[in-house]
Amino acid sequence: MNLAVTDVRLTPILVADPPLLNTQGVHQPYTPRLIVEVVTAEGATGLGETYGDTKYLGLARLFADKLLGHQVTDVNALFTIADEVAVDQSVVSGQVDVGGLRGVQTADKLRLSVVSAFEVACLDALGKALGLPVHALLGGKVRDAVEYSAYLFYKWADHPEGVPAEKDDWGAALDPAGVVEQARKFKERYGFTSFKLKGGVFPPDEEIAAVRALAEAFPGHPLRLDPNGAWSVATSLKVAKELADVLEYLEDPALGTPAMAEVAAGTTVPLATNMCVTTFAEIKEAFAKDAVQVVLSDHHYWGGLRNTQQLAAVCRTFGVGVSMHSNTHLGISLAAMTQVASTVPGLHHACDSHYPWQSEDVLTERLVFDGGRVTVSDAPGLGVELDRERLALLHRRWLDDDGTLRDRDDAAAMRVADPQWRTPSVPRW
Amino acid sequence: MNLAVTDVRLTPILVADPPLLNTQGVHQPYTPRLIVEVVTAEGATGLGETYGDTKYLGLARLFADKLLGHQVTDVNALFTIADEVAVDQSVVSGQVDVGGLRGVQTADKLRLSVVSAFEVACLDALGKALGLPVHALLGGKVRDAVEYSAYLFYKWADHPEGVPAEKDDWGAALDPAGVVEQARKFKERYGFTSFKLKGGVFPPDEEIAAVRALAEAFPGHPLRLDPNGAWSVATSLKVAKELADVLEYLEDPALGTPAMAEVAAGTTVPLATNMCVTTFAEIKEAFAKDAVQVVLSDHHYWGGLRNTQQLAAVCRTFGVGVSMHSNTHLGISLAAMTQVASTVPGLHHACDSHYPWQSEDVLTERLVFDGGRVTVSDAPGLGVELDRERLALLHRRWLDDDGTLRDRDDAAAMRVADPQWRTPSVPRW
Repeated sequence: MNLAVTDVRLTPILVADPPLLNTQGVHQPYTPRLIVEVVTAEGATGLGETYGDTKYLGLARLFADKLLGHQVTDVNALFTIADEVAVDQSVVSGQVDVGGLRGVQTADKLRLSVVSAFEVACLDALGKALGLPVHALLGGKVRDAVEYSAYLFYKWADHPEGVPAEKDDWGAALDPAGVVEQARKFKERYGFTSFKLKGGVFPPDEEIAAVRALAEAFPGHPLRLDPNGAWSVATSLKVAKELADVLEYLEDPALGTPAMAEVAAGTTVPLATNMCVTTFAEIKEAFAKDAVQVVLSDHHYWGGLRNTQQLAAVCRTFGVGVSMHSNTHLGISLAAMTQVASTVPGLHHACDSHYPWQSEDVLTERLVFDGGRVTVSDAPGLGVELDRERLALLHRRWLDDDGTLRDRDDAAAMRVADPQWRTPSVPRW
Repeated sequence: MNLAVTDVRLTPILVADPPLLNTQGVHQPYTPRLIVEVVTAEGATGLGETYGDTKYLGLARLFADKLLGHQVTDVNALFTIADEVAVDQSVVSGQVDVGGLRGVQTADKLRLSVVSAFEVACLDALGKALGLPVHALLGGKVRDAVEYSAYLFYKWADHPEGVPAEKDDWGAALDPAGVVEQARKFKERYGFTSFKLKGGVFPPDEEIAAVRALAEAFPGHPLRLDPNGAWSVATSLKVAKELADVLEYLEDPALGTPAMAEVAAGTTVPLATNMCVTTFAEIKEAFAKDAVQVVLSDHHYWGGLRNTQQLAAVCRTFGVGVSMHSNTHLGISLAAMTQVASTVPGLHHACDSHYPWQSEDVLTERLVFDGGRVTVSDAPGLGVELDRERLALLHRRWLDDDGTLRDRDDAAAMRVADPQWRTPSVPRW
């Protein structure tokens, strides 16, 4: 069996994204993603997906050249390849990634986000070549379905007038009633029983009211609130106190490990994060300070599925919970998330996924949430198939773009509606 | 491809062991090991090896029954099987395992030592079925050879007179000159350039003298001393001070995490352990107290090769070094150790192996140390083959034994020479 990589295809695309609000602005009408295909000598094609912004794309192109001739079994060595690829530090922005909301951005994080797409693609190709599902390449599943949570957003009904965009049928959600209505739709359509509200958009009292409304409408359902570090320690503690009886956890109320540690010390509500613990290097300090009780893994920025398993092992060892973070992503990544989540023991929280917000995908068949769960595929590889026509269409959109949408910038998207808008300084409240 | 387990064979054996001394006594002339064979529906046979003492064997038999019908890909689920197997707590002895010198013994450790043999056997079978080396099933090797250290022992020339035993050609080593002579042989025969002396046998000053003699005979070579927790904190600090200029690390000078932390706080010599950190549950306290700087992994008691990778990830995350511990073992385990070690990034210390002490093996071809290294096999599975005649012979020895040797007991073996001998209380010095 020849498992050498003989071809790598990178296809940047723009996918429709609804006008979802967060503390930094609003989602663009189209979000860049990068679809990676890795082809072996015998024609097995593996799929991966990651951030599509220019700096990721540039690095992925350098990486792809080095992957030719590499064995798809050798996923540990992908990090060595990444080390060899010169990361142009200048493409990495300063402190906080404007669009990504994923904490301090470094060259290493960028590098790992690129590696992850190639790792997933290699595992998919290997699984297809061997006739084994990806989970079998990760030691085998320990559950047959993975639970996801409804990812609620404050949302406009439409993108600003005059902006080319796809229409969605979710309507607006700008107050407690709107949020509850959105949650109802999520439950009806997908069966989710956990709800996460992306906060940091309105003054904390309004968001507290929204979570209260959810608690009343869905008694006993796990609830989460995530303002992306928009609050001060004092505000975080106030919110935690007011919502202590209904929150499963509070996600990134304040920015940075010291602030999170202060909040954690003052509340019984568990704190979750995808901002202060986003790399292995950030774990030691955060765990020593007991700053977080749940780490939200994300195979994109932790460097792939095997690293996600290792992160889970680290968390398990230290008695810290683990769940899964999500950014705008398509079905390839949802399949990858489901495969790896199926192998992690003690996954006590439903995982996040933006997937329901993505009306467009590059697969021949969309993945399905049933009772809030995605069934773990036992088909070879990730168990998904690329729709080349769809891919070409979304790539055409990327080609036709003049550059404005090729780098996700939620603040810029907000300025279309509000020319005075600037990325708020933190803490915002 | 049918990867279901259709047969499991367990073969307890007794293998020749030289009269190696440690703080608890002396190795028996024959040591029990258990050889595990896992056979798939299509005839792929995987090999594993673990402790052969009665309590391990009893648990392995219960485990083997549950493995029938299990997919060899599903190694994560082996822990679930282990949970289902009722562990008779009464078979687990009290505090310190007399023979194993592996710290506090618990039902969980026993369980994991059994799981490890089945995990390795499953991975070997899977690799053979797929035509892939085990390292490829672990994400691929990141090095082509694994470095081992010479494992020096104080040693009698022969087992006590009148005791049935195999003869070895290593001679006695009971003083600095004898230890240096043994080290020379190790270097000549296998090319090792790191040396570890098993201590805790003679008063510390004699062992200090032996390490000093090694440092003079082999300048610049990494040296280690391991008294298996035989010393008090004060003695440990004294030894560390006197050998600070020549030790790569000091291994388990004192018993238990609090004592190790005290020693660590008082010396610049790194401390290694296979006694106070032997399970994931023991990591948090030891790392928080900075009690150990190098964890000596052992796939047998950490529960297999995947768990060994996860342990390495935990250590890497916390800036703690990792290397490999060894108890009396045969070629199957050396092959497994080499496969997993080849996949671990940042393996900065040569691994331990008893293998040179084992003149007997169950393989058709012995593994070879060249320049102190074992080449990582790229053959399917572990890359080793069972010699059924040898296996039958060593099993016959086990069958013929009246029970005295079926449970390793270094103190009992010592009483043959010294009827007054009792397991020394700790700290011994």
